[in-house]
Amino acid sequence: MKIIHVIKVGGNVLDNEVVLNKFLKDFVSIEGPKVLVHGGGKLANEISSQLDIPVKMIEGRRVTDAASLKVVTQVYAGLINKTLVAKLQAAGCNALGLSGADLNSIPASKRQHPSIDFGFVGDFEVKDINTSMLDVLLDNNITPVFCAITHDQKGQLLNTNADTIAAGLATAFSAQYQTHLTFCFEKKGVLSDPKNDESVIKNLDSATFSSLRDTGAIHSGMIPKLDNAFMALKSGVTQLRITHADLLSTQQGTILSL
Amino acid sequence: MKIIHVIKVGGNVLDNEVVLNKFLKDFVSIEGPKVLVHGGGKLANEISSQLDIPVKMIEGRRVTDAASLKVVTQVYAGLINKTLVAKLQAAGCNALGLSGADLNSIPASKRQHPSIDFGFVGDFEVKDINTSMLDVLLDNNITPVFCAITHDQKGQLLNTNADTIAAGLATAFSAQYQTHLTFCFEKKGVLSDPKNDESVIKNLDSATFSSLRDTGAIHSGMIPKLDNAFMALKSGVTQLRITHADLLSTQQGTILSL
Repeated sequence: MKIIHVIKVGGNVLDNEVVLNKFLKDFVSIEGPKVLVHGGGKLANEISSQLDIPVKMIEGRRVTDAASLKVVTQVYAGLINKTLVAKLQAAGCNALGLSGADLNSIPASKRQHPSIDFGFVGDFEVKDINTSMLDVLLDNNITPVFCAITHDQKGQLLNTNADTIAAGLATAFSAQYQTHLTFCFEKKGVLSDPKNDESVIKNLDSATFSSLRDTGAIHSGMIPKLDNAFMALKSGVTQLRITHADLLSTQQGTILSL
Repeated sequence: MKIIHVIKVGGNVLDNEVVLNKFLKDFVSIEGPKVLVHGGGKLANEISSQLDIPVKMIEGRRVTDAASLKVVTQVYAGLINKTLVAKLQAAGCNALGLSGADLNSIPASKRQHPSIDFGFVGDFEVKDINTSMLDVLLDNNITPVFCAITHDQKGQLLNTNADTIAAGLATAFSAQYQTHLTFCFEKKGVLSDPKNDESVIKNLDSATFSSLRDTGAIHSGMIPKLDNAFMALKSGVTQLRITHADLLSTQQGTILSL
């Protein structure tokens, strides 16, 4: 089977022009079909604060009221997505920015939670990802660049976690491709000691993850990221790596296995 | 030759949910290949003002400094574009939001003006419009939805007038299609008396336009709109109509001829 690369880049990376440009150069040099998924929460928080819109987080997830949804749609689908697309086009990569509403690529539904109202937050099922439309793009050497906005197919945009989108896309592609999923962020990998940036765990299996979570060595934002990642591995993704955006072109970082 | 419809909808229409929903319903019901181009200046002005970014206009054109470019990229490519795409998808139209950077669809260059610095404003040539990529979309029954953002192919996003984009796309499509270009806005057509909304000129030729411009009956924002429109007609667009967004499905409004 042909290989496809799905690369997620975190919002913190987008602020650093030097790291971002190196990352994009490395991304462009990946041969074959590839998909970029980007975050942007940090910039969304800054712009929310400029607009006096309070940012509410529960369990690391943004609570998205109507005003926050407008901000994230502007920042993710507008400013960040088009900035990345323009940079990729300049580097010779035929990038196309997408939300999950475009081409109905990621239909989702508003999160139902027994006690917390997350607002306009969307959850999707991998089976609903519109791979036939994405195939049209990939067959024409187009590189999809996804922001973390989905829709409910009734006209409502929804805010969806970018790691979840990357894991979902990679899983959906696994039916046709050997899928390599890489999460790029501002650390060199999963750390055994969060205070020591060099304590990268080179190989992490799900049993070790469970025990490191129980001891608290792996905590907060890393937990949903790794939950997404192990779920993707279980669902058919071939290779899964978590690494620094600077290290995309290397083999360094944390390689996950079941 | 097959017919293609290029429809421009103005920013003022986007604020009125009732008019917008009727307009989109009429747009969806147009058979065959079609393209939507939208403005959004009014909302960009509102958000600029919330962010304390001064709006500067010279001769009806926005002067786009770095801060203004961020706002228009957010508002046009993000909030408005994705809102329209989600609504169109809900109505069964396979919409795909695009800036001129996506798929390198509209390469442009930063405006050079002998005395005025317009900032990050982009001008493009019709011959540079990437119709081969747009053909891939149209051949797959995808409906492009363009915002008024272009790029310089060196990584810089640029702000381009939405009427000019609509006229340019229609002209570019004229090589392969009978092109019907419709400008939808908040008036019923070109008015012979700007104070009387019912004074619609049913048929306007270029000679009459020149004399009405000389007498001042047609003035300010209508002049660049009509200049764009007559240029498109001269360059091969088959049919050109200016009408209210409410009247898209009718034959009413002003029909232009050379």
